Amino acid sequence: MQYPKIPLAQTIIQLCKAKNVQHIVISPGSRNAPVTIGFSNDDFFTCYSIVDERCAAFFALGIAQQINKPVAVLCSSGSALLNYYPAVAEAYYSHIPLVVLSADRPKHLIGIGDGQTINQRDVFKNHVIYTANLSSQMDAEFKNRDEEESAIIKSIENKLERFLGRKQELQQENETEINKALNKALSKRGPVHINMPFHEPLYELTDTLSVNPKIIDFEKRASKVDDFIYNDCLSTWNSSAKKMVLVGVNPPNAIEQKWLDELAKDNSVIVFTETTSNIHNPGFFNSIDTMIMPLEEADFKDLQPDILLTFGGLIVSKKIKSFLRAYRPKEHWHIDRDYANDTFFSLEKHIETTPNNFFETFLTQITHFVKSDYKANWEKVRNHRKEKHAEYLEEIPFSDFQAFDVLFKTLPNNIALQLGNSSTIRYAQLFDIHKSIDIFCNRGTSGIDGSTSTAIGCAVAQSKQTVFITGDLSFFYDSNALWNNYIPANFRIIIVNNQGGGIFRILPGNTHSENFENFFETKHDMTAKHLANMYKFQYGTASNEVQLKNKLKDFYKESEQPKILEIFTPRTLNDEVLRNYFNFVK
Amino acid sequence: MQYPKIPLAQTIIQLCKAKNVQHIVISPGSRNAPVTIGFSNDDFFTCYSIVDERCAAFFALGIAQQINKPVAVLCSSGSALLNYYPAVAEAYYSHIPLVVLSADRPKHLIGIGDGQTINQRDVFKNHVIYTANLSSQMDAEFKNRDEEESAIIKSIENKLERFLGRKQELQQENETEINKALNKALSKRGPVHINMPFHEPLYELTDTLSVNPKIIDFEKRASKVDDFIYNDCLSTWNSSAKKMVLVGVNPPNAIEQKWLDELAKDNSVIVFTETTSNIHNPGFFNSIDTMIMPLEEADFKDLQPDILLTFGGLIVSKKIKSFLRAYRPKEHWHIDRDYANDTFFSLEKHIETTPNNFFETFLTQITHFVKSDYKANWEKVRNHRKEKHAEYLEEIPFSDFQAFDVLFKTLPNNIALQLGNSSTIRYAQLFDIHKSIDIFCNRGTSGIDGSTSTAIGCAVAQSKQTVFITGDLSFFYDSNALWNNYIPANFRIIIVNNQGGGIFRILPGNTHSENFENFFETKHDMTAKHLANMYKFQYGTASNEVQLKNKLKDFYKESEQPKILEIFTPRTLNDEVLRNYFNFVK
Repeated sequence: MQYPKIPLAQTIIQLCKAKNVQHIVISPGSRNAPVTIGFSNDDFFTCYSIVDERCAAFFALGIAQQINKPVAVLCSSGSALLNYYPAVAEAYYSHIPLVVLSADRPKHLIGIGDGQTINQRDVFKNHVIYTANLSSQMDAEFKNRDEEESAIIKSIENKLERFLGRKQELQQENETEINKALNKALSKRGPVHINMPFHEPLYELTDTLSVNPKIIDFEKRASKVDDFIYNDCLSTWNSSAKKMVLVGVNPPNAIEQKWLDELAKDNSVIVFTETTSNIHNPGFFNSIDTMIMPLEEADFKDLQPDILLTFGGLIVSKKIKSFLRAYRPKEHWHIDRDYANDTFFSLEKHIETTPNNFFETFLTQITHFVKSDYKANWEKVRNHRKEKHAEYLEEIPFSDFQAFDVLFKTLPNNIALQLGNSSTIRYAQLFDIHKSIDIFCNRGTSGIDGSTSTAIGCAVAQSKQTVFITGDLSFFYDSNALWNNYIPANFRIIIVNNQGGGIFRILPGNTHSENFENFFETKHDMTAKHLANMYKFQYGTASNEVQLKNKLKDFYKESEQPKILEIFTPRTLNDEVLRNYFNFVK
Repeated sequence: MQYPKIPLAQTIIQLCKAKNVQHIVISPGSRNAPVTIGFSNDDFFTCYSIVDERCAAFFALGIAQQINKPVAVLCSSGSALLNYYPAVAEAYYSHIPLVVLSADRPKHLIGIGDGQTINQRDVFKNHVIYTANLSSQMDAEFKNRDEEESAIIKSIENKLERFLGRKQELQQENETEINKALNKALSKRGPVHINMPFHEPLYELTDTLSVNPKIIDFEKRASKVDDFIYNDCLSTWNSSAKKMVLVGVNPPNAIEQKWLDELAKDNSVIVFTETTSNIHNPGFFNSIDTMIMPLEEADFKDLQPDILLTFGGLIVSKKIKSFLRAYRPKEHWHIDRDYANDTFFSLEKHIETTPNNFFETFLTQITHFVKSDYKANWEKVRNHRKEKHAEYLEEIPFSDFQAFDVLFKTLPNNIALQLGNSSTIRYAQLFDIHKSIDIFCNRGTSGIDGSTSTAIGCAVAQSKQTVFITGDLSFFYDSNALWNNYIPANFRIIIVNNQGGGIFRILPGNTHSENFENFFETKHDMTAKHLANMYKFQYGTASNEVQLKNKLKDFYKESEQPKILEIFTPRTLNDEVLRNYFNFVK
């Protein structure tokens, strides 16, 4: 096999292999050539070539989200690296292990006006869990410690020895740093940044490796929670008649069904699930906004829990956040091995283990359920809402609301469903989605910037068909996502095009100010047709219910090309339909 | 007039007005609503709405590059802000005053799992000249200093007084910080970041301003260089027979022609100008690579200057950089009011004034030119190269090289010419471009990421017609640039489409490794046709010399729509034509 000649490049490649970082998303460049050559010459690695680094990083994030292992992105020096930042922040807040590999110029060529050179050290500092600022071995310098020393060691031999020693030291430091960064990505679920300076020449090859980097394993913490914490939890739990469980972003099949079913049996427990939680039980409450939006003060007091138990990532529903901030639980416990947010200003316990581990120890110790009508009372409300919801759908005109209803009712089973921010995921929360469907959405930063790229990454990593539903602004924002040679033919994009940022008509706070259409809604008349042609997607449209149902009949079937379905909804009607909904279901 | 109710929003708007920041590029969002409303309600400001923040920031950079004054970009909280980063870094290294205004959540809502919330403080630290991390006045808290104090001041009245005092303090701190940031942008030519936390409600309006922020002027430094520096320079200059002047990125009409003509008269001075230098005299040497590429060691020694005088921004030519690093001048002087790079590892003097000021004092003190045949000898080489250049063009097939020759020969006079990175600007260096043409290229980071957006910003700010020449990768990278409602009808894009990163076939160091086409060249068969249709550009193509000349006949004439001309060149032939050129002109 042919390896790059530069030891640092060999080191990176060997350590990525040792740590099982298999997927490498490469953007073209010269400074990163040693590593590009190394990765692409080795069959262990699956390499992808994506030009736009913003898309490349979200694509890698989509893969990592599916395989739940670190995925690397590799780029050249300069502003290329900065285009990774939106995905790095998303990975940071979504706890996804993204390994950013940036090539850099050697130290003496930085800050002197060379091309494609920026200050890459710690550039993602605010949003990575580790940065490895590596050194080029060629930067090893002989430094005279003091005059006396310098007087003694004059001979070339001595200097050489010191130089080689320093080279060796730098190699060892680099190895340690790379190990640390990859170990962090593996153990703490987040993005890391490894910055790699390379001297020219960049394209030289060799048949034999000149370094054999040490592989440092990370300490596998037993995620053991002390007994007194369980005891403390148990006594509070067993004496509380109102307990709420709230589940945010959570990967499919992460929680054993038996624990969920156990929770559902308890009449003192209401389980609120978000669309992104991927957990299911007929007794759970899944349409949070439909439940909460129409409530009044007396209801809120009644719903206010004594204990709030949460697991999973960030919460979509603004309604439940403001409700729980105003009507705080006595105690909020969050279960996660590594991270806990004080989202409701009442975090009492961070239970540092996995939900499965917690439930296994905790639920099996519960001998009796607390007598309570908490759940039963709210089930009545829920059932009423469900009836009104169905009724409402009978009477509304074609709109975002109706389109989403049709979409979610006709999705095939057993697919991966990717949802765009921000209208899409909010509408999705209002509907039932079949439990065989795995649901994903970039809720770390909730940005509209990389959802399509993430969905394509998912499609590449998934054996299931991937369907991506998005709004128009989010779709056009990430239009370069389609510039991708790896999109499988069964990938589907559905764009709900309401000709602008429909969310601004919906979110509380919006006043129809003079400049609203221009600077908030950003009204437009664009369609995805041209992009579909450009990137060889089959393309169809629908502008009413009949057309939509018709188009959906064959939409998910096998095809030679991936497909886009663009649904046009009436821009100025959508907000009214949604607002009326919350009044109607009261 | 209607103002936003939040004092911080009022403060920002009033200070931007006071400092004459007139152009505001706004991306849609809710958190930034107070400022969006404020700017768009006030006729003083020219507001633009651009959805993709990456494009928005480069568009603003293009305006700032033309008007030479701070231009603001405004976005919501979250990853939106991070999409500005590529343009912020370009502004940093190109010394362009870009004012980044980011809305933020108040302190207590950061890091607790709220949506669209990241850690915005100092996020661009590596690449801004100032960051103002503002506070929300609502964050004013009553802090007890110690127990005794706390025991004494119990009354609500006291607390309230303290609270109001702290609010007032925060307002004053914010005012000072905003002044500092804007003053830096005004005086030190670079990007600044102002982070603005806002509490809800965000959309409330008022008829009267509640704050009247103080306006702090920046100290206008007289850019005076001490006499002894001039004397020192003069004595070295007058005793050196080989002086080289090298000019990088420099705005049009920045240097008075009489000083340039004076330099051109001196036989001991060779002036090397880059395409981006925008300075002209028949005695100057403008095709650096054509001059230097074919040289051998003896020539280099002969060309090595005693003094290297530089002004302007970064240097495109890698050849002259490696030549001057290997054959260093005895002294390198750089003229710039604020910044100096040690690009050739021999910087002796940073002359902290404008080139005009320097020349006025310096050149008028030179009483006689040093006798030298330095320039005359190299003029012979240059004339020989010019002849061979013309000869070469007679014999080559259609290729990038020929296409650029045709393009530069047929450009209209008196236009603004924007050049993409990286092949485009390198080819441009090999040709003469009419002196009435103003030339621009993003050489701060030399990225391919935002050239189209920058060119459109230029077109909007310029009264002259703007023509943008770019490669295919650079064009597709910034495809969202065309999602812009402000593009003037006389704007022209010319894409030299060689179906991949042709630069990788040209730059030294490239070996045709196995994965070359995939991971370096990133070969593709895309065309701009679909984007032209999507964004309503007139579109034409050319695939040979005759077609090209034909298409160019009417291309620049008045039209109802802006136009794209896409030139297809033979992918695998271009590198050979270029390599042969440097041998041929020997």
